[in-house]
Amino acid sequence: MTSLDLTGDVVELTRTICDIPSVSGEEEALADAVEAALRAYPHLEVLRDGDAVVARTSLGRETRVVLAGHLDTVPIADNLPCVLDGDILRGRGTVDMKAGVAVMLRLAAGLPSPRHDLTFVFYDHEEVAAKLNGLGRLVRNHPEWLAGDFAILGEPSDGTVEGGCQGTIRVKITVPGVAAHAARSWKGSNAIHSAGAVLDVLRAYVPRQPVVDGLRYHEGLNAVKIEGGIAGNVIPDLCTVFVNHRFAPDRDVAAAEAHLREVFAGFEVEVVDAAPGARPGLDKPAAKEFVELVGRPPAPKLGWTDVSRFAGLGIPAVNFGPGDPLLAHTDGEHVPVPEIRRTLQVLESWLA
Amino acid sequence: MTSLDLTGDVVELTRTICDIPSVSGEEEALADAVEAALRAYPHLEVLRDGDAVVARTSLGRETRVVLAGHLDTVPIADNLPCVLDGDILRGRGTVDMKAGVAVMLRLAAGLPSPRHDLTFVFYDHEEVAAKLNGLGRLVRNHPEWLAGDFAILGEPSDGTVEGGCQGTIRVKITVPGVAAHAARSWKGSNAIHSAGAVLDVLRAYVPRQPVVDGLRYHEGLNAVKIEGGIAGNVIPDLCTVFVNHRFAPDRDVAAAEAHLREVFAGFEVEVVDAAPGARPGLDKPAAKEFVELVGRPPAPKLGWTDVSRFAGLGIPAVNFGPGDPLLAHTDGEHVPVPEIRRTLQVLESWLA
Repeated sequence: MTSLDLTGDVVELTRTICDIPSVSGEEEALADAVEAALRAYPHLEVLRDGDAVVARTSLGRETRVVLAGHLDTVPIADNLPCVLDGDILRGRGTVDMKAGVAVMLRLAAGLPSPRHDLTFVFYDHEEVAAKLNGLGRLVRNHPEWLAGDFAILGEPSDGTVEGGCQGTIRVKITVPGVAAHAARSWKGSNAIHSAGAVLDVLRAYVPRQPVVDGLRYHEGLNAVKIEGGIAGNVIPDLCTVFVNHRFAPDRDVAAAEAHLREVFAGFEVEVVDAAPGARPGLDKPAAKEFVELVGRPPAPKLGWTDVSRFAGLGIPAVNFGPGDPLLAHTDGEHVPVPEIRRTLQVLESWLA
Repeated sequence: MTSLDLTGDVVELTRTICDIPSVSGEEEALADAVEAALRAYPHLEVLRDGDAVVARTSLGRETRVVLAGHLDTVPIADNLPCVLDGDILRGRGTVDMKAGVAVMLRLAAGLPSPRHDLTFVFYDHEEVAAKLNGLGRLVRNHPEWLAGDFAILGEPSDGTVEGGCQGTIRVKITVPGVAAHAARSWKGSNAIHSAGAVLDVLRAYVPRQPVVDGLRYHEGLNAVKIEGGIAGNVIPDLCTVFVNHRFAPDRDVAAAEAHLREVFAGFEVEVVDAAPGARPGLDKPAAKEFVELVGRPPAPKLGWTDVSRFAGLGIPAVNFGPGDPLLAHTDGEHVPVPEIRRTLQVLESWLA
């Protein structure tokens, strides 16, 4: 087992954990190394569930901050071991998100007496199907391990704080018709033509851009699938339109559904799936202070992310980690070394 | 081999040929019986191609009338042998279209010296894929066997003359978009939403109902298939709409295509398939006289039928046969006996 030095250089630590392959489902070696390294620190209580490792202080502070990051990566693309190229560290996992994990490991080891109580969560299976997600498993098995007042996910956020996330809901709209032979089309009713009224609604829709806890979100309402038609000579008796609504975190799933039922009044609407958004919680004192320390304007997170799992536990959460999120999953993924150091420095200043 | 009596009662002849099963592909026994029976008449020249039998007079008349009917049926549904139930003959093939075939066989045998030269065509594979159609095969192999001035298909036409047929053309309309993550939909362009403009055209379209050779047709323009969408979280970059246009026989395929390109100007339109319509030709003297003799107002044929194969040879054609076409292919298919006798009588009066 590779031994991890949690007190040395954070860039060297990033390299070391990048070079322990941990594609989703194969996180055990890295989880073992992380657990063993953390157990060396008496100020931390270390817990384990599968390949998720949790370490926490219990100093009786008023506030508890949770710092979380996933250990797994997408498959390696001949881009390991990683390479230090001037100020750039290149290789699988560098930006998504072992640099962020290395920063958290350094904080866990180096802050025996932080201002807030701290919980560090290192988890598995983030890059695969949602039902396998290690953070989701902890929510189900040990929600008390995740308790806290504010959470930071160390996903790359390009140097700023990305707050909360938008929710998503998918509905199926069923438009009926009456089948007939295409040679006598007026004997039937064309369901595809009738579905034009659904597309009318979508084309005319003006999405909200509400400000929530100080961040401006941007909603969306889009057809993501349409299908209709029986045969080349038959007037179709059915057309279905699948619509995806992305909604700002000032609405919950029930409010989003009610909104869709109002927008598509008169149509048969069935909810296919939904996931709530997450408020950024940047109005909380601890978060405000943190954002001021980062010193760059915070941005809203538009896509759905694991911060929503914290929101589900009532914990506001943000993304804050080194590197450009658009490089995640690319063969050329990399992270600028100064960004790793800066992230560590900001978090250390805030938490020390 | 069942021997056919072509001089006896036409209803009895209908029963006999119904009771020789001849589902598409298995017409040989019936074709053999028809050929043998026709060869007994020296006023007829008898020709054969596969299971199609052609018999014709060569009296040097000014006009030649072609009478055609298919020998095959759709699969038997426990409805053979056929049953005479009062004035109704029930069973597979009774209405589609052995009653019509029986009438033609009686005419072939019983009119050694008709007013017009006559060509009788009994063919195979009408109820299956168009490429197998026996009349189509004759058009390819022996177009000269089908030469004539006017053609009558003995398909059931509910006691009146159904003239010509409408053409059909199918086009694929491709609507492009720009893919994007559904969480940032404004970075893309939704192809399904853009396809709404195609549905706008379809919904606003007012089909023509032109009068052609005295018959009022009824066109149609309909989406018969729509598909679009990549995944539940992606703005689709492609939506395709398949549109079927049924057009009256005053337009040919080229004119119909030009019309569609005008209607869908600005969209990418590709022709998938097309088949020409057929003019009813009811303005020709022989046809006028025939319609007057039938004594009921003629009707336009809206669906595409084999009359179009005659039109392709420059021969106007109509449907005229006993029974209700809506009973074709039903398990309860049947034909009223008086209709068989009346059809024979009308054609005999006209041709004798």
